[in-house]
Amino acid sequence: MTDLLGEMRRTHNCGELRATDAGKEVVLMGWVQRRRDHGGVIFIDFRDRGGITQIVFNPEHSPASHEKAQVIRSEYVLGVRGKVLLRPDDMLNDKMDTGAIEIMVDELKIFSHAETPVFPVEDRVEASESIRLKHRHLDLRRPQLQKNIMARHTASQAIREYLNDLGFLDIETPFLTKSTPEGARDYLVPSRVSQGNFYALPQSPQLFKQMLMISGFERYYQIVRCFRDEDLRADRQPEFTQIDMELSFVGEDDIMEITEGLIKTVFKKVRDIDVNTPFDRITYAEAMERFGLDRPDLRFGMELCNVSDIVKDTGFKVFASVVKNGGMVKAINAKGCINFSRKEIDSLTDFAAIYRAKGLAWIKVKEDGWQSPIAKFFTQEEKDVLAKRIDMETGDLIFFVADTPQITNEALGQLRNELARRLDLIDSNTYRFVWVTHFPLLEYDEMEKRYQALHHPFTAPLEEDLDKLDTDPLNVRSRAYDMVLNGTEIGGGSIRIHSQELQEKVLKTLGISEEEAHEKFGFLLDALASGTPPHGGLAFGFDRLAMLLCQEESIRDVIAFPKTQKASCLLTDAPSQAGVAQLQELAIKVVKIEE
Amino acid sequence: MTDLLGEMRRTHNCGELRATDAGKEVVLMGWVQRRRDHGGVIFIDFRDRGGITQIVFNPEHSPASHEKAQVIRSEYVLGVRGKVLLRPDDMLNDKMDTGAIEIMVDELKIFSHAETPVFPVEDRVEASESIRLKHRHLDLRRPQLQKNIMARHTASQAIREYLNDLGFLDIETPFLTKSTPEGARDYLVPSRVSQGNFYALPQSPQLFKQMLMISGFERYYQIVRCFRDEDLRADRQPEFTQIDMELSFVGEDDIMEITEGLIKTVFKKVRDIDVNTPFDRITYAEAMERFGLDRPDLRFGMELCNVSDIVKDTGFKVFASVVKNGGMVKAINAKGCINFSRKEIDSLTDFAAIYRAKGLAWIKVKEDGWQSPIAKFFTQEEKDVLAKRIDMETGDLIFFVADTPQITNEALGQLRNELARRLDLIDSNTYRFVWVTHFPLLEYDEMEKRYQALHHPFTAPLEEDLDKLDTDPLNVRSRAYDMVLNGTEIGGGSIRIHSQELQEKVLKTLGISEEEAHEKFGFLLDALASGTPPHGGLAFGFDRLAMLLCQEESIRDVIAFPKTQKASCLLTDAPSQAGVAQLQELAIKVVKIEE
Repeated sequence: MTDLLGEMRRTHNCGELRATDAGKEVVLMGWVQRRRDHGGVIFIDFRDRGGITQIVFNPEHSPASHEKAQVIRSEYVLGVRGKVLLRPDDMLNDKMDTGAIEIMVDELKIFSHAETPVFPVEDRVEASESIRLKHRHLDLRRPQLQKNIMARHTASQAIREYLNDLGFLDIETPFLTKSTPEGARDYLVPSRVSQGNFYALPQSPQLFKQMLMISGFERYYQIVRCFRDEDLRADRQPEFTQIDMELSFVGEDDIMEITEGLIKTVFKKVRDIDVNTPFDRITYAEAMERFGLDRPDLRFGMELCNVSDIVKDTGFKVFASVVKNGGMVKAINAKGCINFSRKEIDSLTDFAAIYRAKGLAWIKVKEDGWQSPIAKFFTQEEKDVLAKRIDMETGDLIFFVADTPQITNEALGQLRNELARRLDLIDSNTYRFVWVTHFPLLEYDEMEKRYQALHHPFTAPLEEDLDKLDTDPLNVRSRAYDMVLNGTEIGGGSIRIHSQELQEKVLKTLGISEEEAHEKFGFLLDALASGTPPHGGLAFGFDRLAMLLCQEESIRDVIAFPKTQKASCLLTDAPSQAGVAQLQELAIKVVKIEE
Repeated sequence: MTDLLGEMRRTHNCGELRATDAGKEVVLMGWVQRRRDHGGVIFIDFRDRGGITQIVFNPEHSPASHEKAQVIRSEYVLGVRGKVLLRPDDMLNDKMDTGAIEIMVDELKIFSHAETPVFPVEDRVEASESIRLKHRHLDLRRPQLQKNIMARHTASQAIREYLNDLGFLDIETPFLTKSTPEGARDYLVPSRVSQGNFYALPQSPQLFKQMLMISGFERYYQIVRCFRDEDLRADRQPEFTQIDMELSFVGEDDIMEITEGLIKTVFKKVRDIDVNTPFDRITYAEAMERFGLDRPDLRFGMELCNVSDIVKDTGFKVFASVVKNGGMVKAINAKGCINFSRKEIDSLTDFAAIYRAKGLAWIKVKEDGWQSPIAKFFTQEEKDVLAKRIDMETGDLIFFVADTPQITNEALGQLRNELARRLDLIDSNTYRFVWVTHFPLLEYDEMEKRYQALHHPFTAPLEEDLDKLDTDPLNVRSRAYDMVLNGTEIGGGSIRIHSQELQEKVLKTLGISEEEAHEKFGFLLDALASGTPPHGGLAFGFDRLAMLLCQEESIRDVIAFPKTQKASCLLTDAPSQAGVAQLQELAIKVVKIEE
């Protein structure tokens, strides 16, 4: 067959030729990164997935190729046959892997012309993110994105290899499925065959993976797309990828050991970083007490300090009344930060306000006593007790939040992270993992006036808390666990309920009627009664894990074709209008609010 | 943490213990396949993913376990600790892998009771397929389905390993995307954020994988779910899995070599079958001429024989007029089938009628001449010429179809396959691969009165046929190729158009206006102009490949949670009604036809 390639076939990539290859005849194929003309000779930085090599068109060596090369511009696609030459000593380039050689071209094929790119294909790009997303085919040519996508590939293959070796089976679950109760909004897919009915895209394969355990597959995994129609935050996508696992005949320890091994393997393969295992474990209660957040960043100290008991009877009514009304007063000690300006303190107060803290009290600990708007409200004895509890030393700056336990913890927990960033306390090359365990099984939804599952309704309660399900549901702890890395949750899971009776009881506690339970989860309840092994699992957010592995700030930089925060694809212009005929077949009609 | 498992952890699976393990203390966990009571002793066939082992509760050995075991019934889930004993000689079971041993139980944990299963968990199942699908968690416990799902896992991992080693990158493409022109109907997903607009679920990642080539990733693959909202045939699912590949800087030979290697690897790993490569190749024209179908089954002969030139001037007007009107007369020779009854011939005529053949002429070749309703229309000379062309010998039965080329080929091609089945000509252990190449680029759609792409609009025409695009479009051959196994297409692909000008020209030939082209494929056309490498690819239907690997008749037997031919999931009861509030958020309304 005749085609553009003819008999030409690539022998090497553009990143692998070295001085030791001198003299070889090679064929390279790739893109023009840059063209320079010098003394009648054309020099081209020639790029492919593997790297960059200099190729040379010399009119004295090959007049025909040189002539043909005249038209070449940036991003043209070429195939060249030539000889590897050592560069002259004064032309060596230590910064390039291939800087010791160049290719003297004998034969040139121009596969494709290229218009001038909208932005240059370089890591330092000035173009806005929306321009980059619109021209994603150019954006993806940039070395950093190429590296990210390749690292993501390496990560997913390392994960598969690790799990395969442990006897996990990669089993595919449906995408056109039934609405599941993950708490978020489903994407719906109208059915044409069964008009008026809808599929839901899965928020996770939760119920299917439990069915697979009930079916006896024992160890399941999948690297699988999931969907949530939520308003998007910076690090969320409407479709995201989950490393999803489930195991039978295991408890928490087994799952933690296996998933720690998985993380260790991935960090080694992708980044050559040795992660120490086993990871620390901390209960939810302890995490909240010490760090205010259920995803504590353990790379630095500055722990929260509960002073409610001390301040509850002091003359500072703001603190005292908060405690008396069931609230909480906590402090953190910004060691040595006495020189923070009023402006800096105000900016931190604004920061705490994002998390609904109504104010931020502070104390500067000076040689000669406290400098603080609130100092006057405390007796010396109270001051001494506080100073001891908070470990105050001269030069320290103390912050307090007094509010509901929830707001106090969150505002001060976030403030702790923010202070660490501002004070540069964080070593970005440290990877600090921790398991957070014993989450509450339920939380109370004030809006809907009912209990909600904190994890999901299939999470098992701790056996020793089972009797509190009736009497004190909010204090039932669950067998859920999250894996937290540097303050970010990267995975979470639980031991599941494997008894039909307990599952029915939990659903009832959640205020789900028997009828609703059977309509939504009847198949699970039936299956639970058919012989169910003890089982549990975990899911990692793969986009976020890849982002952390690549040291990127945005998950969009580790996804080939991401969506914007408005859930649109700027490259293809999705979503877009559907044809009238098609909507008719689906028996649906668009009825916008203005109609 | 306390839980049901306690300190008990599995040491072996139920398929791996042998006589050499005698004396070991082991822990097994699994399901009760069958219980027998014999002389006060309870014997249980104990099953897990790995196989079956006999476990024994002997009241003299462990009264407590024996007592606890009284309640055990089929499908209960247990954990047992016990000792491996050699079975007495008269109890050995050669049919079981573990038939030389049994486990004398010391400790029993009952993890789960089980209701009597709706159908027994055995390969020979009487239950209808819809009962099986409704109780898929039981169905999936059957050894054959367990084996299929595990074989599918083995296949997908073998494929990944093979492609990874060749430098292919597993890159994820979007599911919430734009309607693509694959020819089939899209599943739509209404957007909440952008009311009135819709995403489409991908029929294939075709355009994204081409964008990845334009982005310079050079070798891409994905094992990925795709969606087509078509009326379903027996071997189709609304969601199906594709092994999707694309490569840059290659021609047909490169892609064929790599994918042949992939198939060779998978058959070896999953079935220990050695597939010979390279595969034969046959052009579309030759396949149609010799076999009537573009997916010929080469495991047997009985090729089609074109006799149009012979019959066009004979006295048999039915044949002659068909040829004169542009039709075609072809025959197949069912060697030695002279004894077919009238009833058998009628049933074959009915079979041919499914493929729109209006009749099936036949000739029985006897010692003393033809026995045939049409014999009288032919002169002896014509008979001799026909006999020679069709290789008639005494004892043969010849069938003819005379119709349009399309109907003649299809009806006779299908008849050839049917005859081979009835005559048992096919060795089911033979795997006969063939490439079909040089498909027509276009076909004419009589309904829509315009050309359609036979493959898809991005398939490259053969370079030597380019000039016919304007003058004789139906005779332009494409650079598409299908991989056919035993008469089934298992994969197909093409070299793609990599020039913007040619792509625009082909879209124009397809009757797509410039405006429509830019609305639908503008991003591809733009990208093609930004420096595009020559590229091409292929996609395998993974469900079908898995089915052939598992020697199953239905793809539903290699999919964990398949849908029915009405595209519903009987297990979860999807699709189902959506909430009013949710539809309001999406700004859509159900308007059934009767309203």
